[in-house]
Amino acid sequence: MAIPAHDVLRFGNQAKKREEGQSMGDVAARFAEIVGDANLLSGEAIPEDYAHDEALTTSAQRPAHLAKPGSAEEVAELLKAASEHGVPVTARGSGTGLSGGARPREDGLVISFERMNAVLEIDTENHVAVVQPGVTLSDLDEKTTEAGLGYTVYPGELSASVGGNVGTNAGGMRAVKYGVTRHNVVGLQAVLPTGEIIRTGGKTSKVSTGYDLTQLIIGSEGTLAIATEVIVKLYPRLPHGATVFAPFETFDEVMTVVPKIISSGLAPHILEYIDNLTLAAISYNEKLSLGVPDSIRDTAQAYLVVALENRDSDRLHSDVEELGGLLGDLGAMDVYVLEGPSARKLIEAREKAFWTAKAAGADDVIDVVVPRSAMPEFLRKAREMAMSREAGALGCGHAGDGNVHLAIFCKDTDKRKQLLTDIFALGMELGGAISGEHGLGRAKAGYFLDLEDPAKIALMRRIKESFDPAGILNPGVLFAERA
Amino acid sequence: MAIPAHDVLRFGNQAKKREEGQSMGDVAARFAEIVGDANLLSGEAIPEDYAHDEALTTSAQRPAHLAKPGSAEEVAELLKAASEHGVPVTARGSGTGLSGGARPREDGLVISFERMNAVLEIDTENHVAVVQPGVTLSDLDEKTTEAGLGYTVYPGELSASVGGNVGTNAGGMRAVKYGVTRHNVVGLQAVLPTGEIIRTGGKTSKVSTGYDLTQLIIGSEGTLAIATEVIVKLYPRLPHGATVFAPFETFDEVMTVVPKIISSGLAPHILEYIDNLTLAAISYNEKLSLGVPDSIRDTAQAYLVVALENRDSDRLHSDVEELGGLLGDLGAMDVYVLEGPSARKLIEAREKAFWTAKAAGADDVIDVVVPRSAMPEFLRKAREMAMSREAGALGCGHAGDGNVHLAIFCKDTDKRKQLLTDIFALGMELGGAISGEHGLGRAKAGYFLDLEDPAKIALMRRIKESFDPAGILNPGVLFAERA
Repeated sequence: MAIPAHDVLRFGNQAKKREEGQSMGDVAARFAEIVGDANLLSGEAIPEDYAHDEALTTSAQRPAHLAKPGSAEEVAELLKAASEHGVPVTARGSGTGLSGGARPREDGLVISFERMNAVLEIDTENHVAVVQPGVTLSDLDEKTTEAGLGYTVYPGELSASVGGNVGTNAGGMRAVKYGVTRHNVVGLQAVLPTGEIIRTGGKTSKVSTGYDLTQLIIGSEGTLAIATEVIVKLYPRLPHGATVFAPFETFDEVMTVVPKIISSGLAPHILEYIDNLTLAAISYNEKLSLGVPDSIRDTAQAYLVVALENRDSDRLHSDVEELGGLLGDLGAMDVYVLEGPSARKLIEAREKAFWTAKAAGADDVIDVVVPRSAMPEFLRKAREMAMSREAGALGCGHAGDGNVHLAIFCKDTDKRKQLLTDIFALGMELGGAISGEHGLGRAKAGYFLDLEDPAKIALMRRIKESFDPAGILNPGVLFAERA
Repeated sequence: MAIPAHDVLRFGNQAKKREEGQSMGDVAARFAEIVGDANLLSGEAIPEDYAHDEALTTSAQRPAHLAKPGSAEEVAELLKAASEHGVPVTARGSGTGLSGGARPREDGLVISFERMNAVLEIDTENHVAVVQPGVTLSDLDEKTTEAGLGYTVYPGELSASVGGNVGTNAGGMRAVKYGVTRHNVVGLQAVLPTGEIIRTGGKTSKVSTGYDLTQLIIGSEGTLAIATEVIVKLYPRLPHGATVFAPFETFDEVMTVVPKIISSGLAPHILEYIDNLTLAAISYNEKLSLGVPDSIRDTAQAYLVVALENRDSDRLHSDVEELGGLLGDLGAMDVYVLEGPSARKLIEAREKAFWTAKAAGADDVIDVVVPRSAMPEFLRKAREMAMSREAGALGCGHAGDGNVHLAIFCKDTDKRKQLLTDIFALGMELGGAISGEHGLGRAKAGYFLDLEDPAKIALMRRIKESFDPAGILNPGVLFAERA
């Protein structure tokens, strides 16, 4: 395939808008020339799946074009062509996002990374993997296992792609010990809207030479640059693990236990809470039997799930014992140590909480983050806000991180928007943010615009412009037009 | 003190250059009005200390003005006034930087944070501290000890300030376990050149709402915004620690041991190498007696220092035993377990390596970072490059991070510049960067401009402009004019 030679767009050039008389077909032909006919679809030929991600409140929208590039150079050519023709571009991983960040524009081009899905290198000396953005977490998990290492970001959905995780700065259950995506990505290859291909960071965990472009691109939801290669940190896999499960009578008790577990130095890699209704729902859906007697189940308001891991099985057992004692002292109604299969089932069921909520008819799912000490107040007030409007707000979350996942049940769109605005404002007042790991996408961008400091929004817009002066990368994501 | 009301400078306004007839005195009066007469010095009244930091190659330059603000609001007013008058501004912590990032301009204003030095809060529930930028690491260490917690960034110089550490993204010996400054700062209050005061991040370790301004400001060496409050992560202090010290016959052996220690899961919090000449120098200077017999001292080319810590003393002892075995198997000539005082002395002596090099007449000190697997090749070639020019390059470094500190002995300026250019280019070719933790400042900015991808430099300049269109923040730092 011959890549046509074009002048590199100079910074400051506005992309030429599609001129009158220039048909969609011309643009499509250009894209097809770049990726090959077999890898470019237009109009009705594009499968419906590419019209949305998993956000519950973002309407589906089929894009005008879908390209499946095979290399960074092809991505660069696509961006140059899109800039010239003023075509908005949405990068897409596996489409598992929850905020509509991969929902394209009607006149847009979706760049899907399904062909760029190779694990390029597992580097056991530097403890990193170099991967293409379309690599799924399950694929990376499998490949790293062979080397005794692991990538520690587990956002629940293992079909998610690494590139998508970079876009939203995905988190997940193990973040309490290992951090979120931005703490585990040390380098990128990325394409700027100008078509320039840059490399940021590298196989090192520290660099101090100017602005950290890696960190700036992570979490930018495809609005600044498009990642075409990702270097992730790997950790040694610890062979011994145990999961402890403890019901509590009140939410406040669960939440006061959390900082004490962190202070203990036991360093759990999972520290989750699940409210009673959510546990009932996921247990029912996943046929999960945890052996909790009815008397406890009827009175427990929330449950804590704590997982420990160790190089050494004796140390693990003594840590589990210490943790059990701590939980008992701090008011747990009982403490269950789950063995291999039931522990795995509980964690898997917890990971599917989003699907359980969706199946139960949830109208939205949010992931507010607050300082963990503010979780009791946040949860109490958010539930009151919902109840006073005859709506529901329940769920589970990453207790160690103060990251609360709430399924919102409220059919009326306007009422729900007001409820969400109030809950988000509450989270921000308590020192938190609208999203801990799902991102803003299109679904939460309007709330962000309404609630965030205008000076920060203006600054972010200027940063956006410094990367993408023509505004072709994922317009409508992060920076909503006010509804 | 009354703060005069000024219109907030709108973005896009270029700072007015000082007009003819408007004297330096006018500007000084304005600054004095903001911070109070006692906190504003001008001209010869400014102590010589404010003319430099600890960089070996940057000439001292007394600034025109020195202001010591007492609040973020005063910093905001200073920046507004500086913008209006076109006065370049250099933020200064303790002045312990090694790259000239705090070396002011002749016509400039230094903002010194010595009065903003309060630890505002030690939050034991969220495991964070909220501090003003002038707080020193030793002060923070003392205050957090009382709470059983600790801030884990130890760049060696404990008189350094947290604000300065944010500027350079300081690292240090414990980065191998705990990361560098950017991994340990979760929120900032910062003043933009417009005088707008923003808050980024918070007491949470994850946020996914737009661009990560915290990460962008960290490591920006005072060129984007000025931090006026810093929220840092704290970790539980582990009460039991041991330091293991092992001589090796060759550099290559030391370096091949490093990834194996990381893979072991022993999770050392210090993993350093020291070359034979440097160990001799710091031992002599610090009157350090490590009990290494002459026969070993005469043949060892380099030494590894590994420190372990644990909640439990039995576990520590068994880890130390395992580590000793591992080092022996991998070719250590001997293994010494250092007890409390001698371990502390060794670490302190290592921390003073910069001063030892300076006292020995080093002409520059650099801190190239490379993937740790590339350290043997980097060190071998860098030393050859030096020797072939009758220069010296020796030192120590953070072996776990691939961060090599080399003292460069080469009196001739031109020859030294060429040698450094070659060594930096070598580091970059091997996948590394010019600096791992010292930053570019003024001292290394020219090399960066010569060696870095022009597309990245252009992008960084555009980002700079999105924060600081008038270019008042630390001009000459990061972005050098070509020599």
